[in-house]
Amino acid sequence: MVYTTRIEYFNAAHKLWNESWTAEQNKEVFGKCANENFHGHNYELYVTVKGEPNPDTGFVINAKDLGKIIKEIVVDKLDHFNLNLDVDFLKGKFTSAENVAIGIWNELYPFIQEKGSTLHCVKLVETKSIYVEYYG
Amino acid sequence: MVYTTRIEYFNAAHKLWNESWTAEQNKEVFGKCANENFHGHNYELYVTVKGEPNPDTGFVINAKDLGKIIKEIVVDKLDHFNLNLDVDFLKGKFTSAENVAIGIWNELYPFIQEKGSTLHCVKLVETKSIYVEYYG
Amino acid sequence: MVYTTRIEYFNAAHKLWNESWTAEQNKEVFGKCANENFHGHNYELYVTVKGEPNPDTGFVINAKDLGKIIKEIVVDKLDHFNLNLDVDFLKGKFTSAENVAIGIWNELYPFIQEKGSTLHCVKLVETKSIYVEYYG
Amino acid sequence: MVYTTRIEYFNAAHKLWNESWTAEQNKEVFGKCANENFHGHNYELYVTVKGEPNPDTGFVINAKDLGKIIKEIVVDKLDHFNLNLDVDFLKGKFTSAENVAIGIWNELYPFIQEKGSTLHCVKLVETKSIYVEYYG
Amino acid sequence: MVYTTRIEYFNAAHKLWNESWTAEQNKEVFGKCANENFHGHNYELYVTVKGEPNPDTGFVINAKDLGKIIKEIVVDKLDHFNLNLDVDFLKGKFTSAENVAIGIWNELYPFIQEKGSTLHCVKLVETKSIYVEYYG
Amino acid sequence: MVYTTRIEYFNAAHKLWNESWTAEQNKEVFGKCANENFHGHNYELYVTVKGEPNPDTGFVINAKDLGKIIKEIVVDKLDHFNLNLDVDFLKGKFTSAENVAIGIWNELYPFIQEKGSTLHCVKLVETKSIYVEYYG
Repeated sequence: MVYTTRIEYFNAAHKLWNESWTAEQNKEVFGKCANENFHGHNYELYVTVKGEPNPDTGFVINAKDLGKIIKEIVVDKLDHFNLNLDVDFLKGKFTSAENVAIGIWNELYPFIQEKGSTLHCVKLVETKSIYVEYYG
Repeated sequence: MVYTTRIEYFNAAHKLWNESWTAEQNKEVFGKCANENFHGHNYELYVTVKGEPNPDTGFVINAKDLGKIIKEIVVDKLDHFNLNLDVDFLKGKFTSAENVAIGIWNELYPFIQEKGSTLHCVKLVETKSIYVEYYG
Repeated sequence: MVYTTRIEYFNAAHKLWNESWTAEQNKEVFGKCANENFHGHNYELYVTVKGEPNPDTGFVINAKDLGKIIKEIVVDKLDHFNLNLDVDFLKGKFTSAENVAIGIWNELYPFIQEKGSTLHCVKLVETKSIYVEYYG
Repeated sequence: MVYTTRIEYFNAAHKLWNESWTAEQNKEVFGKCANENFHGHNYELYVTVKGEPNPDTGFVINAKDLGKIIKEIVVDKLDHFNLNLDVDFLKGKFTSAENVAIGIWNELYPFIQEKGSTLHCVKLVETKSIYVEYYG
Repeated sequence: MVYTTRIEYFNAAHKLWNESWTAEQNKEVFGKCANENFHGHNYELYVTVKGEPNPDTGFVINAKDLGKIIKEIVVDKLDHFNLNLDVDFLKGKFTSAENVAIGIWNELYPFIQEKGSTLHCVKLVETKSIYVEYYG
Repeated sequence: MVYTTRIEYFNAAHKLWNESWTAEQNKEVFGKCANENFHGHNYELYVTVKGEPNPDTGFVINAKDLGKIIKEIVVDKLDHFNLNLDVDFLKGKFTSAENVAIGIWNELYPFIQEKGSTLHCVKLVETKSIYVEYYG
C-alpha cells in the first residue's frame, strides 16, 4: 500500500457566522472571523489516496487524473468564490476549515473510488497557523 | 546603510471590479477575480526600512517598534476585513495588489520617518504566484 | 472525527550534554550540539487535537482557545529562553527534540482535555532537516 | 514511542516510460513525463524512524547517524544521477515516485534496524504538487 | 513605478558539460553536475515587470496575460524537457542557471514590451541553495 | 552582469545586551531578546555575488567554490556557536542581525574578490518575521 498526495490551491472568501446567534454572540465566539463583509484565504488542499502501485505504470493513481478530478469536482466550485454564498455542497453549513474539508471529502470520494483508488485523507490548510485533516 | 525587513500577515476578502464597466467587461478583464460575492487571500506584507545601525542597539529600527507600527497603522485595518468595503485608505480604489501596496506605503511612510528610519519598500504577496513591490 | 492543527513558534537556546559523561564523550556523541556556550533554534510547534466538529461552530476546538492554551502553557515558558537552564518542565532532562516534545505533550494534555478535545500529536521541528512527533 | 524524521535532498533526471508500450501509448498515459530525453526534479526525502528515546541521549536515533545512513545508502546513489539509467536498486523499474520510495525503503530498512530503531515511513516529494508515502 | 512578479515552474533535465574539455576536466570543474546521463531540477521562475498601474485596472500588467506569455514563450519549451537537447533558445549554450536566465530574458523581453510593460528581472531558482538574477 | 546567490544555514545562540546599560534598560529596549541565559535561531544566510558569466563554464562563480568559501570563512565559525561568546569577528559587538550581516560581509569580501567575483549582498534571515540586507 502506497499513499499518493496531490496538492491544489484555491482562493476564497468566507465568514464564520451562526445565524441562530446574535451579532454579539458571533463576535464573542468567532472574533474577527465574524466580520460581516467577509475575509478570505489562500487555501491549500492536500488530497491523499491509497492503493497498490499499478504494475504497468508504477502509479497508485495517475497524478494527471487525480488533479483533473480535484479540479473539476471541487476546486472549480471553490476557487475565487465565496464559501458562504456560492458553493452548492457547503450550503447551510458553517464554513469552518473542518466543515469545508468534510464537504470536499464527500464530493471527491466516489470519483476517486471510480478510478480504482481509495480516498485516504483530505487536508485543508487555511492559514500558516491552522490546518485540518479528515479521514472519513 | 542596512535594510531591515519585517514580515506581517493579513487575511482579507476582495474583488476586482471597475464600476464604470459592464459586468461583461469586468469578467473579460478580471476573470474569476471579478466574482460579485468576493474571494480572498492570505496576504504576506514585507516592510523594508533602511538606515545606519544605532550604535547603542545595533538596530536600524527596533523590530518590536516596527512590528507595532505595521500592526496598528495598517494590519489592524486590513486583517479579516473586506478590502473593497471596509478599509478607509482604499476607499474608491481598485483593490489590485499594486494599489493595496501603494496605499500601505502612504499610510506607513510618516510613522517610519518619525522613528528615525526611512521606508524603502513595501512588498505584498497575494498568492504563491503573484507579488508586487513599491519603492515610493 | 476531524484533526485540527495549530502551529506556533519559539526561539530558544540549548545544548546537548550528558552530565555523567566526560567532555570528550559528549563531543563524540553530540558533536557540535555539545558546544558549552549553547547554540539555538527557531522551533516550530505543531499541536494536533482530534474530536467531532461542534454543531454550533463547525470547530473541533476554537483555534483562538487552542492558540491561547499553547501560548500560555508552553510557548511563554520556552520562547527566548534557554531550554537547559530556564524551563521548569525540562529541568534535569536532555533537551533533545524528542524530550522537548514529550515535555510539551505532558504540559498541554490536561488543558486540551478540559476544553472537550483530545490531544493527538505534538510535532516539533528543530531545523529544516529534523523534526519529531509524539502521540502520547 | 517517538517518531523522528530526517530530511535529505537529491536532484535527479528521469522519465516515465513503459518499454512494452508504443511511444503513442506512453505519451497518452504519461504525458510530458514520457519525454524521451528525460526531465528532472529536486526530490525531497523524508525518512521517519520510530523508537523509545535512549535514556543516555534523549534520542530515538542519533540524527548524525541517521543522516549518514541515508546519505551513504541512498542519496549518494541518487543525487545528480538518472533514475532510469544510473541507479542499481531501480534497475528495470518504472521510476514513478511510488516505486522510488519503495526502493529507498528496501535499501534503508536493514541499516536502520541495525542501529536499534525501526523504519516507519519514507516520504518522497517529487514536485510542489505531488508526494508519496510508503510504510512498508 | 510598481514592480509586479509572476512565479511559474518547470521541471527539466540538464548536465553541465564543456565539449571542448576532457571528461576529467568536466568532472573536476562541474563535479556531480557533469554526470553524462543528466540530472534535473524543479526550477522556479520569477518574472518581474515594472510600470505605472493602469488607472482602469490597478494593474501594472494583467497577471493572466503575464502568465500566458511566460507559459507560451518559455515554460512550454522548458517544462519536462532536457535543457541540453530539447530547447531551441539554449542550443549550443552551457545550461548553467545563469545562461538559462539570460536565455529566458531574451525570449520574454519583446513580448512584455508589446504589452506596454518593461521586463525588470528574471530570477531562476535551481535548488534550495542556488538562484540567479538577471536584469538585462 | 548576473547575480548569483548561494544559501547556507547556521544555528546559533545569542542575546541582545548593552553592557553599559542596567538590566532594566536592557529589558526595556531588547525585551525577551535580553534573556541572560541566551536564546537562539536557525539563521539563513544568502550571499549574492555579481559578475559576467565565464564563457568556459556559464558561471558567475562556481557554486561549489562559493559554498566552500562561505562554509570555511563564516559558517564554520557561527554554526552551533554562541554569537556573543564564541565568534572572533563579532567580539565586542551587539549581535543584532544587522551587525552579524555586516560582520559576515567583512569576512567574505576579500575571498570573493580573490575568485574574480564581487560580493553584492549579504542577507541574513533571523526568524520568519525579520531579515536584514547589507550591500557594503
